[in-house]
Amino acid sequence: MKTRREFIKTTAAAAAFSILPSSVFSSQASKLRLGFIGVGFRGQGHLGLALRRDDVEVVALCDVQQRMMDMALARVTKAGKSKPQVILDGPYGYRKMLENKDIDAVIISTPWEWHTVMCLDAMNAKKYVGCEVITGMTIEECWELVHTSERTGMPLMMLENVCYRRDVMAVMNMVRQGVFGELIHLQGGYQHDLREVKFNDGKDPLGPGAEFGEKAFSEAQWRTHHSVNRNGDLYPTHGIGPVAMMININRGNRFTRLSSYATKARGLHNYIAKTGGENHPNARVNFRLGDVVTTMIQTANGETVLLQHDTNLPRPYSLGFRVQGTNGIWMDVNKSIYIEGQSKEEHRWEEAQAWLDKYDHPLWKKYGSDASGAGHGGMDWFVFNAFVQAAKLKIQTPQDVYDAVTWSAITPLSEDSIERGGESVEFPDFTGGQWMYRKNNFAVDDTY
Amino acid sequence: MKTRREFIKTTAAAAAFSILPSSVFSSQASKLRLGFIGVGFRGQGHLGLALRRDDVEVVALCDVQQRMMDMALARVTKAGKSKPQVILDGPYGYRKMLENKDIDAVIISTPWEWHTVMCLDAMNAKKYVGCEVITGMTIEECWELVHTSERTGMPLMMLENVCYRRDVMAVMNMVRQGVFGELIHLQGGYQHDLREVKFNDGKDPLGPGAEFGEKAFSEAQWRTHHSVNRNGDLYPTHGIGPVAMMININRGNRFTRLSSYATKARGLHNYIAKTGGENHPNARVNFRLGDVVTTMIQTANGETVLLQHDTNLPRPYSLGFRVQGTNGIWMDVNKSIYIEGQSKEEHRWEEAQAWLDKYDHPLWKKYGSDASGAGHGGMDWFVFNAFVQAAKLKIQTPQDVYDAVTWSAITPLSEDSIERGGESVEFPDFTGGQWMYRKNNFAVDDTY
Repeated sequence: MKTRREFIKTTAAAAAFSILPSSVFSSQASKLRLGFIGVGFRGQGHLGLALRRDDVEVVALCDVQQRMMDMALARVTKAGKSKPQVILDGPYGYRKMLENKDIDAVIISTPWEWHTVMCLDAMNAKKYVGCEVITGMTIEECWELVHTSERTGMPLMMLENVCYRRDVMAVMNMVRQGVFGELIHLQGGYQHDLREVKFNDGKDPLGPGAEFGEKAFSEAQWRTHHSVNRNGDLYPTHGIGPVAMMININRGNRFTRLSSYATKARGLHNYIAKTGGENHPNARVNFRLGDVVTTMIQTANGETVLLQHDTNLPRPYSLGFRVQGTNGIWMDVNKSIYIEGQSKEEHRWEEAQAWLDKYDHPLWKKYGSDASGAGHGGMDWFVFNAFVQAAKLKIQTPQDVYDAVTWSAITPLSEDSIERGGESVEFPDFTGGQWMYRKNNFAVDDTY
Repeated sequence: MKTRREFIKTTAAAAAFSILPSSVFSSQASKLRLGFIGVGFRGQGHLGLALRRDDVEVVALCDVQQRMMDMALARVTKAGKSKPQVILDGPYGYRKMLENKDIDAVIISTPWEWHTVMCLDAMNAKKYVGCEVITGMTIEECWELVHTSERTGMPLMMLENVCYRRDVMAVMNMVRQGVFGELIHLQGGYQHDLREVKFNDGKDPLGPGAEFGEKAFSEAQWRTHHSVNRNGDLYPTHGIGPVAMMININRGNRFTRLSSYATKARGLHNYIAKTGGENHPNARVNFRLGDVVTTMIQTANGETVLLQHDTNLPRPYSLGFRVQGTNGIWMDVNKSIYIEGQSKEEHRWEEAQAWLDKYDHPLWKKYGSDASGAGHGGMDWFVFNAFVQAAKLKIQTPQDVYDAVTWSAITPLSEDSIERGGESVEFPDFTGGQWMYRKNNFAVDDTY
């Protein structure tokens, strides 16, 4: 155990480690013993993936609500697995789970404001940490996560699933094979009508309804408070994660500064008035979150990234990806691509699908059938698998603590920029200069 | 004549005038006597529209190049019209044309850096001015245009044709009828691979070629210098004009601030190297213009506008429009729309065409056949017609001097923001507070 721990420390510090193919470690790779902090709907999604696997043992479940724990335990029973340790002991009950020496790693799926303290406690307890998105709500929290991971040698992987979306991985594959030439400008975002997530009737997890907070159920119990109190890009990681990997952020490149503008706030009030009436108490709530928040980011290597956050208005779902280089451009909203000299007609979009098929990532070729039926079109399987494989092998996770905090830091930085009238704000270098030396080892082959 | 002049002065000053239906003035509306300053390819386009009309007399043509003048005169002859006065007397030859008392109005189609001085001279000579896009390359020039138009009482119309694009006008019609609810966020831009406009072989106006400046022909003679020397959104008006009209800029709303980020510059050098070789002298030119420039604009009424300038890379043409309100969203890149409660499927894009047909603007319904065959899908006909109608009636133009400079000012403001690391810069109020009182009278009916 000591040598493994040493190995982690060394590789984490060197920050330019290689991911070894799993075959090398297969003899050492026993079952991963997992604990779950938070088994709401998102935690249950991860739990479901764990229960499908023979190389994962579900050791303990922790939550603050009986209803969710009952649903989670029913999943365990249905899967025919043995009953795990159950902790239902208030918000800090998870600390009891962390005392369990039989747990190698934890999966955290709790409200955003609990992520940092749980990650810190878990790393200090020498657990591998897989945490749902948004790891660090302030720059100070981001730094504390970095310092704690570096001090303890324990990896923190933010479980950013969109990095594993099939089209996104195919495009990353194309980027790496030079199809787009030198990358110039990229876009992503989170454009998702969340009104039925932010409000419900207290019974169903998805609306319609006008309640949030204590009278609501599931995410509306906590997520909506962020829309009441904060104005910024509150959910940047799905858009920025894939883009960051394509331009080697923290791995030869870094974000240098950012500027955000926000619109007025109308959508959430309108939705309450529609579902609960103008006299509903929540119709008097003053939401600070602008309906559309736009963020521009500059990189050290001269690319720009445009991020859009748009969750309060009626609209079709779109992460709004665009990858543009000196040879051509891909966009997901029109499912189209143009590559100079290769696309059939000059200056004309062509359907992207044939390109996406041709450049299908080795991981999807290998594991596409395993992933089928898993959440969010299969990408949940890949991000969970990557965490499990790295934790089993006791090596660094493919998305690491620097990724986690760099992507999450966009929220407080955008809040700061908006507060200051759209001023450009400096982006911290969480790698402490190591970005110049670190190599991009995310999904470089079909290992995980 | 005096009363008419007084009328213009009064209405321009009141800034809340009504456009009177042409029938009211039809008895007064004689032929408009037009002079053309600049008869390069763009000026010839306008000339062609003038020659098609019975209510316009082409009185004089002015240019600095014999080749262009010959082409223009050939058009006149072919149209069976009488030969106009011809001025070929260097860059300031147009001043002789302005001395001609038989000219009511001028159309300016010259390099950007000549627009301001020509507009100023023409207004001071008491001519109506229709000027090609970009009226004011600096904030000082913009102010001078405003002050001169106010002092002389002569309207300046920047001939922004995209305000008349059929789909754009249909969407504006939808906006005005409340289909989108309250507008929240809008996008536009100029995403057009101009490499074959910026470079050619000195013979053909469109590339391929590696020459610009003196060895080149047509726009590459001058336009490319702006890419060498300036970094900003160099061509904002096609994207911002339609958007500005939809959110009533200078007519109840105004732009308050702006922030721009630019990428590195790669596309133009790469194109020279490809067409002229790495040893071509122009391969050593250091282009300042970033390949993609992104600009965010904030409005007094709380909307945001996103503008994109992207002219140096291989890509399909797209002005990138997006109009989003509390009820739904339209985008042109995927030709799609979503209106809550009306679109067939919830949360799903539907093709926009049926909506565009249903809300076809009265102007297009009335004049669509007249416009057919005119440049840029017919919209050139409408912008030229609007200028002619207003000038004939001696009333304010539907796009006025405040529009002209507000849209053009984005270029110097974006240059300033980029120079200062993406800082937010204040947007001047060129109306001097009148934006609070002015009404939007752009294309409110089928008059022009």
